[in-house]
Parts: sequence; C-alpha cells; structure tokens
Amino acid sequence: MAKFIYECIDCGKQYPDSEVTYVCPVCSRDQKPMRSLLGVLKVLYDYDGLRKKLDVERLRRRRAVGLWRYHEIFPVFEKGSIPQLMTGPTPLRSARRLRTALGQNGLYLKDDTGLPTGSFKDRASVLVAARANEEKRDVIVAASTGNAASSIAGMCASIGKKCVVFCPESAPAAKLAQMAVYGARLFPVKGTYDDAFEVSLAATKEFGWLSRNTAYNPMTIEGKKSVALEIWEDLKFTAPDKVLIPTGDGVILAGVAKGFEDLKKLGLIEKEPQLIAVQAEGSQAIAKAFHSGTDDVAPYPNAATVADSICVQAPRNGRWALKALRGTKGSCVTVSDDEILSAIALIGRTEGVFAEPAAAATVAALKKMVGENAVSPDETVVALITGSGLKDVPAASKAARIPEPIEPAIEAVKRLL
Amino acid sequence: MAKFIYECIDCGKQYPDSEVTYVCPVCSRDQKPMRSLLGVLKVLYDYDGLRKKLDVERLRRRRAVGLWRYHEIFPVFEKGSIPQLMTGPTPLRSARRLRTALGQNGLYLKDDTGLPTGSFKDRASVLVAARANEEKRDVIVAASTGNAASSIAGMCASIGKKCVVFCPESAPAAKLAQMAVYGARLFPVKGTYDDAFEVSLAATKEFGWLSRNTAYNPMTIEGKKSVALEIWEDLKFTAPDKVLIPTGDGVILAGVAKGFEDLKKLGLIEKEPQLIAVQAEGSQAIAKAFHSGTDDVAPYPNAATVADSICVQAPRNGRWALKALRGTKGSCVTVSDDEILSAIALIGRTEGVFAEPAAAATVAALKKMVGENAVSPDETVVALITGSGLKDVPAASKAARIPEPIEPAIEAVKRLL
Repeated sequence: MAKFIYECIDCGKQYPDSEVTYVCPVCSRDQKPMRSLLGVLKVLYDYDGLRKKLDVERLRRRRAVGLWRYHEIFPVFEKGSIPQLMTGPTPLRSARRLRTALGQNGLYLKDDTGLPTGSFKDRASVLVAARANEEKRDVIVAASTGNAASSIAGMCASIGKKCVVFCPESAPAAKLAQMAVYGARLFPVKGTYDDAFEVSLAATKEFGWLSRNTAYNPMTIEGKKSVALEIWEDLKFTAPDKVLIPTGDGVILAGVAKGFEDLKKLGLIEKEPQLIAVQAEGSQAIAKAFHSGTDDVAPYPNAATVADSICVQAPRNGRWALKALRGTKGSCVTVSDDEILSAIALIGRTEGVFAEPAAAATVAALKKMVGENAVSPDETVVALITGSGLKDVPAASKAARIPEPIEPAIEAVKRLL
Repeated sequence: MAKFIYECIDCGKQYPDSEVTYVCPVCSRDQKPMRSLLGVLKVLYDYDGLRKKLDVERLRRRRAVGLWRYHEIFPVFEKGSIPQLMTGPTPLRSARRLRTALGQNGLYLKDDTGLPTGSFKDRASVLVAARANEEKRDVIVAASTGNAASSIAGMCASIGKKCVVFCPESAPAAKLAQMAVYGARLFPVKGTYDDAFEVSLAATKEFGWLSRNTAYNPMTIEGKKSVALEIWEDLKFTAPDKVLIPTGDGVILAGVAKGFEDLKKLGLIEKEPQLIAVQAEGSQAIAKAFHSGTDDVAPYPNAATVADSICVQAPRNGRWALKALRGTKGSCVTVSDDEILSAIALIGRTEGVFAEPAAAATVAALKKMVGENAVSPDETVVALITGSGLKDVPAASKAARIPEPIEPAIEAVKRLL
C-alpha cells in the first residue's frame, strides 16, 4: 500500500493521498461558514506492517530527532524535505516546585516555549512546510489568532517559500511584528479570528495557494501529534494518565489524541491518556457541546478572553475534539481570565517557565481540578505549555506587577526592604 | 590540586577558591566607580592532568548535556547542583539562505533565542545558580540591562532561591514583565545600566547577597564559555575562523575567548578563532579603546542605542575584552541602529530566526565586513544570536512594517495584490 491514506472522521470514507488535500469532498458539501468543519481527514498508516518495523529498541538506538525520528508515521518521504529550523524535542519538565505547590506528585510541564517561533504551532508548520517542499508548492496561506501565522511565516522564511497570513488586527503586537520580520505578506483583518479564517479560505480557492488553516489542512493535526510521541518517549515509553490541553479550535487536542492513537495501534502503549480540554470561560464552545452531550458544536458568539490563542467563536475541529474527549473518558474544564493570569505568575515563580495566557490555562485548570478532587495526587499528569510569555507582554504585566522606579542609591533600597 | 583556582587577569596572582569570590582584592583596591573592573578573576583548571581525561572520543560517547557534559572544566562538583531549567545545546544553524544573501559560504548562526529565558545570559546564570546551590547561598542579586536579570530571576525561581534585580527603568517592557513573573524582587532604577550596576554592588556589600554582576562574579564569564564548547563540538571538534560577538560589557566576548583558550590548553584545538567585538555606534567604549591602542577603557558618556542589551557607558569587563581581541588578532566593528534594524529583518526573512537588536548586530557587522573585504567568502564564521526578538517588540516593529488592517473580504485582498 501507499505510505499513508486519508479517512474522513465523519463518513469514514478513505482516500489515497493523490485524491484529496483538505477535507472530505462529500461531507464538506454541507459546510456552513462559521461552523466546525465537516469532513476533517485523518491520516492513516499500515499499522500492522509497521508493528514489525517500529519498536522501542529501534527508537532507543535511533539518533535522528524531530519528525524524522518517527518518519514511518509521518507523511514525509525525504529527510531533506523537513525544514531544519525545527530541531530536537522540547523539555518534559519534572515540575518539582509546582508539584509541591499543587500537591500533584506526578506533574510534568511539556515546555514548548523554546520552539523556534516560540509556540507549539511549529509542530504543525514544520509538517505543512515539509509537504509543501515535497509537492513543490510555492505559497502557503494561513489564518491564525497569531501563533500559527508567525510559526508558518518563520518556517516559510527558513526554506524560501512565500507566506500569506490573515490575523485579527487585535492579535498581540509581538505576534504581528514577528510575522512581519519573517517577511510574510501580512493582512491584519478588521474582525475576529473566525473572520480571518473565512477570508483565508476564500483566498485559498481564488489563488490556489496551499492552506495551512488548522484542521482544514489535515497535516496540521498530524504534525501536532509529535508532542504525544515525545511525551511517551520521555516517560520511558509509557503514556501519562492525563494530558491538559489549551483548546480553541480543538486541533492541538486532536493532534495529541492522534499521537496516542497511533501508538496504541502500533502496540506501543496499552491505554490512551485521558485528555482534558482547557477552555477560557469567555470562549467555551467545545465545553458547552461536551457538557450538553451533543456532537454538534454551536458557535460561541462574541468570544473574548485574555488567552488570545484559544479565543475562537466556531471551533474548526470541534467534531474531532469531542470524539477525542469522549473516546478517552476525558473532560472539559473552563477557567476565568483571572485564574489564567494567576497561573502565569504561579508557573513563573515556581518553575522559571514563562507562559503565554493560553499556555498557563492548563495549570489554572489543573489547580481547579485539584480543588474539586477531579485528579488524584499520584496520577501522571502532563500540562502542555504551548507558547512563550514573551508573545503577550501586556497580559504578563497584568499577571505580575512591575514596581515603581527608585533613585539609584542604596538608601532608596533600604527604605523599601 | 583543587579542582580549580582563580587568577587575576591584571596582576596574575592566584587564589584558591576558598579565599575569594569576586575580584582580586589587591587590584580592586584602586577601583573607581563607573570604570572597567580591576582584578577580574579567571578560573583555571589542572589542564595537564585533564588532557588525559577529556578527549574527543570520550565526549562522543558521553550522553550528558549542558554544563555537566564538560564537567571537568566547570567549577561544579555535583550534577544535581545544576538547575534543570537549562537543557541541551542550542542549534548551530547552517544559515543557507543568509549565506547566499551575504556571499559567505561558511556562515553559521549560533541561535540562543530558544534558551529557557530567551537569551544567552542563561549560560552565565545556570553556573551562578549551581554555585549558589553548592555554597548554600539563598539570595542572588544582579544588575542588568534586562536579559541577565530576567535570566537569573528564572533560574532562581526554578530552584527556589530568592532573587533581587536592579535594571534601568527604560529596559524593554518584556524583560521587566518577565522578571516580575519569575517572582524576582525588582528595583527599576531611575538611571542607566551603569547606575544599576553601582547600586547593586552597594546592596551586595550591605546585605551579603551573592552578586551575579557580570564580570564582578567570575562565574558569569566561566558560564558563558559553554557557547564555545558547543560550537566546537558542532563543527566536528574544530574551531571556526571568526566569531562575531555582541559586545557591551565585554563579558560574552571574554566567555567565548575563555572557552577556546581552555580547548587550546587541553590540546583540543590548535588555534583560537579571531574574535570580532560588535558594538553599536552609540555605545562604543571598547571600540574606541581598541582602535586607540590603549589598555584602559574610557567611559563612553551618554551611551544610547536601539540595542539595549549592549548599551553600556563603562564596560565592566573592558580590560579582558581588549586582551581577547588583541590575543586572537581579532577586531572591533561598530554598526548603526539602522544597520541593526535592517539586520533583524534580514535574519528573519532568510532564516526564520527572530533576533533582538543586540543579537542582530552581529549579522549587521558581518554585512559591513563583507562590504569592506574584511572577511573571505569561505571562512568559517559564527555569528552569535544572543536573544529573542520577542524581548523587544517595539524595536522589531521598527524593523518590519505591520500593514493597515483590511475588511475581511476577498475583494479587499484582491485590491492589494
């Protein structure tokens, strides 16, 4: 068989790679704007054949890092296609001082703040860029709250591809400046992320550019699964009990789910971890659907939260996210903006890790779960830290006060101590 | 003999570790405020003994990363003393597209933007923090333009030590917010970095805290040498021809020099690379002294540059910096703020690397050297990229324009293309 095929998560129809690029042509016929995408595609491999080729012993001996380390289960054919901007795995931090603060003895932070463009989104962008190399596509377009666009802009710069990005004009200044520095053609949009998503889909159709839109391009989900593989390796080839995931569109959640699903299909883990979707109270479309028991995610109008990266009205990957939450007996936790800001300071002062609001939301949620006895103290829990606090300094400044300046004299210091 | 001793770079007197902490007590008697430090100490090891213990074959087989990888030539005794916040080596990027743009076929970027607190300064902080652990010191104090303070604040947070920092109130907002989030006791100072340096020395004496002041604490220089060791390993155990180094106080420069000096003493390289100090035109105290042939660095009053990290009136490690430049037949290049901003955009759009102004200064200087035929096209040249562009977004916004927002409609896009 071919190295991989696609399967529609809604109707189950399978397609060879050569037939489709984005969503299932049948299911997506009924697609309405500003709703979760219908017909999102899942990448599948010849798992039975791979069981004999990919095992723990082989991985232990393997020196390759990044996507190529697990090349049998990524849709790339040549190591040289993968942008070198993306390097090794990110740290899985045994968060000792945060463990003590929260009374969670098996807590780890998966710290993606040091990725090349400062966010988790590089995991998706590197695969989209690798595919663009293999398919000889020259222009990549993306809609984004900010991180995905700065990520694909950086990845494109590093391999000499053109990049066009659409973002809400309200995106944090750091993310907009970053895209501009990477040389992307940047269109700030008078509107929300959801508006940017729709106009970028229209541009994809109009100009034939390759879309990196999250969930719309199935490679974004497939790329994000690398985080699950790294966690599994760092936990001595076992799965954790729970993974806390910042959730806006639901694509990181689906990526994590897909990673552990692949490991299970390969016989490399026995049980998938429970996935915990963490949403902001002001942007909780998936939480609403999860708690109401429906499969259909209604839009959450006027979504607003300090955690811009998960501020989404219509979660594009809502359908897969709900499947993953239910399939792993997971749950959905919402946190307030105050809880998020307070978690930024907590992670900073206990671990020296500086997280952007959406990233800190996972620790805010864990704190809430501890208070509600929704997690046992000895469970192995991984909180994803998906973006650097340097991405959103105004939010950080709300999380921790900068004192008034003093005269440069020791007396001024003594007066304050 | 003991694992290491100190040697004064001015009078050559040697001291056991137990006798001194900061500068040579004899030479520093004549110290004047706001001048290069007298009596900076160099850490020395038993090189003859170590030649038999530390070789390329042993290093190749070694799995440890970070300081412990080279523990024979770092003043730490226990692996457990080293903060785990600091992880592996940073990427030495074969900057292919930037090579083409500059016509320099052997150019590499040593990319430290992904270090835990986003800057090179973590290399010094991790060693100071490890020594604080071994000496059971509880409070670390530092003066900084911003990066060193946010770095030591993060390192202290991760190991539960108290941190007190003094910075100019004009430091970039990102750096101040970062220190506050890490829970440091932050004193913004009405004045310059040099004022902050003096008041922090006074606080060190008054309260007995451990000072992380650059050059004053010799561990800052010793910690920074790790970058030279990593470059050497990545270049298949050879030294490059030239290293370009952003230079304010001259401590990174001395750290790089010390790393290659140690490798030479161990017989692991034949020749040290030429070191190129890169200064901003508006803060060029070391350049002035270098070109005038003196050993004494006069202060450069009213220093001002967009590259805040190298904005220094009185370079504290000026004496060692000059020795290193002359000893390696290096040179000193000054660049304008416009050249620095333009280099931020150049690095971003060719390599997908987002550098803060001081970091981009190295590429600005290389571009200038190419124009002046001061470097051959096939030399192996390493430019240090010492801090993330996310540390100073206002500067980045000057380097690349963010366009006006558009209506979220495909017609608005078509009109602009």
